[in-house]
Amino acid sequence: MTESRRVSVSQLEAFIARAFVAVGMSPSHAQSIAGLMARADVQGSDGHGVFRLPQYIRRIKGGAVNIRPNIRIVREAAGMALVDGDNGMGHLVMRHAAETAIAKAKTAGVAWVGARWSNHAGPASLYASMPLAHDMIGLYLGVGSANHLPPWGGIDMLLSTNPIAVAVPAAAEAPVVLDMATTVAAYGKVKTKAQRGELMPEGWMIDREGRPLLDPRRAGEGFLLPIGGYKGYGLALMIGLLAGTLNGAAMGKEVVDFNADDRTRTNTGHAIVAINVEAFHPVAEFKQAVDTLVRDLRNSRTLPGFDRIRLPGEGSHAARADRLAYGVPIPAPLRSALDALAAELKIASLA
Amino acid sequence: MTESRRVSVSQLEAFIARAFVAVGMSPSHAQSIAGLMARADVQGSDGHGVFRLPQYIRRIKGGAVNIRPNIRIVREAAGMALVDGDNGMGHLVMRHAAETAIAKAKTAGVAWVGARWSNHAGPASLYASMPLAHDMIGLYLGVGSANHLPPWGGIDMLLSTNPIAVAVPAAAEAPVVLDMATTVAAYGKVKTKAQRGELMPEGWMIDREGRPLLDPRRAGEGFLLPIGGYKGYGLALMIGLLAGTLNGAAMGKEVVDFNADDRTRTNTGHAIVAINVEAFHPVAEFKQAVDTLVRDLRNSRTLPGFDRIRLPGEGSHAARADRLAYGVPIPAPLRSALDALAAELKIASLA
Repeated sequence: MTESRRVSVSQLEAFIARAFVAVGMSPSHAQSIAGLMARADVQGSDGHGVFRLPQYIRRIKGGAVNIRPNIRIVREAAGMALVDGDNGMGHLVMRHAAETAIAKAKTAGVAWVGARWSNHAGPASLYASMPLAHDMIGLYLGVGSANHLPPWGGIDMLLSTNPIAVAVPAAAEAPVVLDMATTVAAYGKVKTKAQRGELMPEGWMIDREGRPLLDPRRAGEGFLLPIGGYKGYGLALMIGLLAGTLNGAAMGKEVVDFNADDRTRTNTGHAIVAINVEAFHPVAEFKQAVDTLVRDLRNSRTLPGFDRIRLPGEGSHAARADRLAYGVPIPAPLRSALDALAAELKIASLA
Repeated sequence: MTESRRVSVSQLEAFIARAFVAVGMSPSHAQSIAGLMARADVQGSDGHGVFRLPQYIRRIKGGAVNIRPNIRIVREAAGMALVDGDNGMGHLVMRHAAETAIAKAKTAGVAWVGARWSNHAGPASLYASMPLAHDMIGLYLGVGSANHLPPWGGIDMLLSTNPIAVAVPAAAEAPVVLDMATTVAAYGKVKTKAQRGELMPEGWMIDREGRPLLDPRRAGEGFLLPIGGYKGYGLALMIGLLAGTLNGAAMGKEVVDFNADDRTRTNTGHAIVAINVEAFHPVAEFKQAVDTLVRDLRNSRTLPGFDRIRLPGEGSHAARADRLAYGVPIPAPLRSALDALAAELKIASLA
């Protein structure tokens, strides 16, 4: 059993910001990233929040990430923009991209913003959800930060778990928020199984002979399986073309494994689309229709073994309610890692 | 063994056009639909071309489809439009929508066009591929024409196999064209298995108790499985929200099973996005990067049992080359059905 003490969101944010300031970042940039990383923890994306802080700091110290980026729009038209992140932290780049998409969608109705020279930005749903407050739908596509997927039938890992996220506003119901990797399991889940000493279910990974790989400690000998076989391969490829190649960002062989490398720039690509509901449909009517659909789905009779129907995003909404009220749980091993980081950076540790 | 005689594309087109003219459609609309339906057959989408003609004619005769539609843009901004199909044939509505998206993307860079009051339009890739000739990427989302999918863990069929298609231009290589249902198998594949007297593989369908359903003749007792379990459910839901609900088109309970019903209007929704490559990246460089990626994927070493790596769209490209040269194969049962249709409509039969 590992102890999992909770910390308040504001304590967590302040700690993350201290760490980035300690390595030379401006307080406003540090605060902006800290807010988004803490938001990831609050919504239960535990592998994408403060858990990543030691790695981010390591990559900054290794010279792989620019702490004083000039993030700017390099191409622009009424319904699109291309943001060059100048190798800044992905959170800063994608916040800029999402805000640009929202601003443009106010007049254009829909705006698609691509980003290049970005970095790992945490969970896709953070950015897909930004348009919600403006009564807009958000759609995010991204190139993952390491290749774990071969083309279908192949063994050379040329694709990542390229994620897609979509967030749709509702009326009385919570927004519907899908955030998924195009592989059956995200790589983080494999790591979690290894930490816990558990076997993986069949269907997550195969080895180089095509046999099921169940031992997560042998993950390096095999690769993830895409959802729906060749379909998930096709989706991962298309998301990579749209979020990577189209933006002049890394894709295929060019993708740097940011877990294994603290020195090389990744040129990570993403895309965010803001869809202004009002341009299509009266907002209130649309949200009501979403509520009705959500309730129809929830009221479906269930299969044996299922207690109820879940909607995409439900887990995150529940985590958010819990963690805003009671704080974010920090497992003991993570706390040790953060304490070590605090000592290394000579900053006050997480309260 | 059934005989499968081939007919030329022009003969096929002329026959389809004759049928639509015979039920009162204008020659130009009839020719437009015939061209797209024949294109579906040419690219090997055998369940979505002339195979559908008897059903389309039946629904027109049943009063479910408007043969003289006033297809028009009802909402518009720089980066979007909403097309009202006036319950016309889906092919006409989606050609109009795709052409609108392409025209808008020339200046806006990206344009998203939704459609409502449309109908079944054949394969998604027909429309996703239209932007290719303009050096644009096409993205299509659609609400399927019958619900075969419950929410994950449920048994009430509230979702369709909502397809997504993406088409990306390349230089010397063929365009990369993904066209997929969000279920493991499309419903048409189940019907084909039934016709052939074959069992389905495990993973295509389950029954109301959650047990694998292998006998395609019992398909009515179960439902399709989404790709990646709850992930495919989430994708089908999001595609439905974007292509249906956002446009004021049918979604969830409102979806009419157009296979079982010849009289009710479907209010089918679709969306098409045109992404002008030039707005993001010099076109020649982009296409070269796509070629490089395609070749890297193709050159991957293979798993045991795979002869080579395939790219999305390869099957369609091969079918197109074969069928443009040698004609479209028409299996004997389909020919009988088309002969019966010709007799009923008092038109010359398929040569």
